[in-house]
Amino acid sequence: MSANGRIASPGLEEHRLDLAKRAYDHTFRIDPIIRSLLDTDFYKLLMLQMILKKHPRTKVTFSLINRTRSIRIAEEIDEGELRRQLDHARTLRLTQQEITYLRGNTFYGRLAMFTPDTIEWFSKFRLPEYELTKEDGQFTLRFHGLWAETSLWEVPALSIINELRARTALKTMSRFELDILYSRGKAKLWSKVERLRAIRDRGPLTLGDFGTRRRHGFLWQKWCCEALMEGLGASFNGTSNVRLAMELGLEAIGTNAHELPMVYAALAEDDVALKNSRYKVLEDWNEIYAPGLKILLPDAYGTTSFLTEAPAWVASWSGARPDSKDPITAGDELIQWWARNGENPEEKLIILSDGLDIDSIEHTATYFRNRVRLAYGWGTNFTNDFAGCAATDHPGLKSISLVCKAVEANGRPTVKLSDNPLKATGPADEVERYRRIFGTAGMAPHDVKV
Amino acid sequence: MSANGRIASPGLEEHRLDLAKRAYDHTFRIDPIIRSLLDTDFYKLLMLQMILKKHPRTKVTFSLINRTRSIRIAEEIDEGELRRQLDHARTLRLTQQEITYLRGNTFYGRLAMFTPDTIEWFSKFRLPEYELTKEDGQFTLRFHGLWAETSLWEVPALSIINELRARTALKTMSRFELDILYSRGKAKLWSKVERLRAIRDRGPLTLGDFGTRRRHGFLWQKWCCEALMEGLGASFNGTSNVRLAMELGLEAIGTNAHELPMVYAALAEDDVALKNSRYKVLEDWNEIYAPGLKILLPDAYGTTSFLTEAPAWVASWSGARPDSKDPITAGDELIQWWARNGENPEEKLIILSDGLDIDSIEHTATYFRNRVRLAYGWGTNFTNDFAGCAATDHPGLKSISLVCKAVEANGRPTVKLSDNPLKATGPADEVERYRRIFGTAGMAPHDVKV
Repeated sequence: MSANGRIASPGLEEHRLDLAKRAYDHTFRIDPIIRSLLDTDFYKLLMLQMILKKHPRTKVTFSLINRTRSIRIAEEIDEGELRRQLDHARTLRLTQQEITYLRGNTFYGRLAMFTPDTIEWFSKFRLPEYELTKEDGQFTLRFHGLWAETSLWEVPALSIINELRARTALKTMSRFELDILYSRGKAKLWSKVERLRAIRDRGPLTLGDFGTRRRHGFLWQKWCCEALMEGLGASFNGTSNVRLAMELGLEAIGTNAHELPMVYAALAEDDVALKNSRYKVLEDWNEIYAPGLKILLPDAYGTTSFLTEAPAWVASWSGARPDSKDPITAGDELIQWWARNGENPEEKLIILSDGLDIDSIEHTATYFRNRVRLAYGWGTNFTNDFAGCAATDHPGLKSISLVCKAVEANGRPTVKLSDNPLKATGPADEVERYRRIFGTAGMAPHDVKV
Repeated sequence: MSANGRIASPGLEEHRLDLAKRAYDHTFRIDPIIRSLLDTDFYKLLMLQMILKKHPRTKVTFSLINRTRSIRIAEEIDEGELRRQLDHARTLRLTQQEITYLRGNTFYGRLAMFTPDTIEWFSKFRLPEYELTKEDGQFTLRFHGLWAETSLWEVPALSIINELRARTALKTMSRFELDILYSRGKAKLWSKVERLRAIRDRGPLTLGDFGTRRRHGFLWQKWCCEALMEGLGASFNGTSNVRLAMELGLEAIGTNAHELPMVYAALAEDDVALKNSRYKVLEDWNEIYAPGLKILLPDAYGTTSFLTEAPAWVASWSGARPDSKDPITAGDELIQWWARNGENPEEKLIILSDGLDIDSIEHTATYFRNRVRLAYGWGTNFTNDFAGCAATDHPGLKSISLVCKAVEANGRPTVKLSDNPLKATGPADEVERYRRIFGTAGMAPHDVKV
């Protein structure tokens, strides 16, 4: 067949081209889970900047905690593989392209979000060492060192373990079973997109990707984001994953996390300082960031106590992210608090991000319509929902409640009480002390799924 | 990164390899629908051998008939594209590999199913000319010439038109919408596989692919077959598509079609010869083929009349394929007929292949269990079911009732009465004459979906 009479066919020619690719693929030493230091949540970088400015010498230990004890992770995944992935993440540095992006991009509408000092520090950064042992079917994985450094392990460590768990399942599957798995996974996600569109058609919807840490894998998370770009358009307001934001031209979103009040609390010298530490965090944040980033995270030591005892200026912050209380209860409580403090709740933003699924998104969207601005940070149920998708079920595909928390600051244990006592962390005597100081008003246990 | 430290990543290297492929792809003149002369139904080859032996000089015209008149095919697809696909099919010849397969493979357990004469003729064969015009939104597509030659146009002509219809839909979709379409299509097919497994778990199941002519596309049909190989194992007894049987190592299945009694009837010199022609077909078939291939197709001029008037030896054939009557009614009628003629129905095979879906497969499998051997030839609902799969519906994805029939033999019109008067074909006066001769016992109209 002459060149201009070429016929597309799965014939000899494609095989020939494929040979080079196959040979190349066979030389891979590792298929990495973390491909970039920006493959992390945006709020880690905002917090990093504050840590570098306010606590450059504070030492913080982060530790992996598996809240789903029934899953024995160390029996599921191979320690050698885990070490290879962690070691590989430690070889990463920001690329010139990534540095340029951090310098030149606008974040939350603002140019130069990161100071030259922050960029300079980050461009030389590598992830620090890790400490890995096994005990009773679980890994003990800890990161010791400067807060600014160990903090950046949280997201990659979680992504690595979650993806390694998924890979143990994928390895048991034939090419065909994989095809079914992903076809069903895609069909399932798209049916969620259709329900989100129906919600959007009834009123405003703002939803972003918060699924990095619990994702099935990087490429799957990317596909999920592309699905929301395609299906929701402007209602999809971005991703917490900085690398994906960069690759897909999305907004990078997120503000701050529990590690701030937890470390500040651990560093407090006495009970009075401890009780005030949760507002000291906000004072420091105020110095650095603009109103759009002033989102309260009120639940570390109980939302009710946080709101009741807050200085008046706290109510002027732009919004709040209730993270462990029933969202209806928490939202009502916030709305009443703002109103009591002379703020207009309709101008405030509530960000929901705790164990969201379509049902709870539908329910809260209807409940809060016209009462407050709402945004969703959709996580596990977005980037890691393969329930019922595999031809044969495998525990590695079941998402679990795995976290990586600051457990020690300058040698002192950290504590989280949370609105949900089942999410409390810290040594028992310290938890007791914190409960005495902060009280337990408004706390109520409910199941922790993810 | 050194060679032994190579990291798998979607980086520069893959793009580089891709460039060659993309450049190559861009030079394609045509993405062919028919890739091989064996991309046809196996029964065409069995009938071909009989035609070559018994009717080498008979001239038969085949013509496209769209029974779904509401779909105006000539407005859906471009005439130029249709001509390019038909012209491309006419360039095909059997490859040496395909000739070797026909010579060396066993079919229905028999070596040398095709005689050296048949192979010799087929290896020199090209599809003959076609006649294409447009009228009132429909194409008139006709094939004139020797029966052996025009007969081989039926399946490729249907596949081409069905796939061109699908392609008009695919062209309107983004890369992402295509991804959703195929993900949902795969998920949908797999849910059918799971229901078939449940049927198989309750009793024997034999099911094969009869979906070539109505398929969405060749590669999709191949995927569907792979799904049944994976999901049903030995219960999937093969495909009617000879090329796919060869590529996938499956049995090629199928026996005979209505064109045999229709052409034999048209050639009959008088009413007596006409009435007997349907058994003359069987006599000729008897000379060539072994018992496994002796499957009656009793409905061309009414099943009831066919069975009532059949010579006793007809009941000794191995089975039957009721094709236009309600399968329960037809099966009961066949079982009673065999019993009346001293044959054991439990040893007989009934092949169901008319508009099957999972519900009708489930229903008939239960109804006939332990009364007769059953096999299913699964067509449109297997290889072309994308209902509800597209992000936005498109008529091109809706399968239609399109057939390509022998309409003339040596200048005389053919007639089919069928058990379903809505499927009757032929000039009105000839249909009238045939009805007078064969009667209308047991005929009843019901919807023709596919």
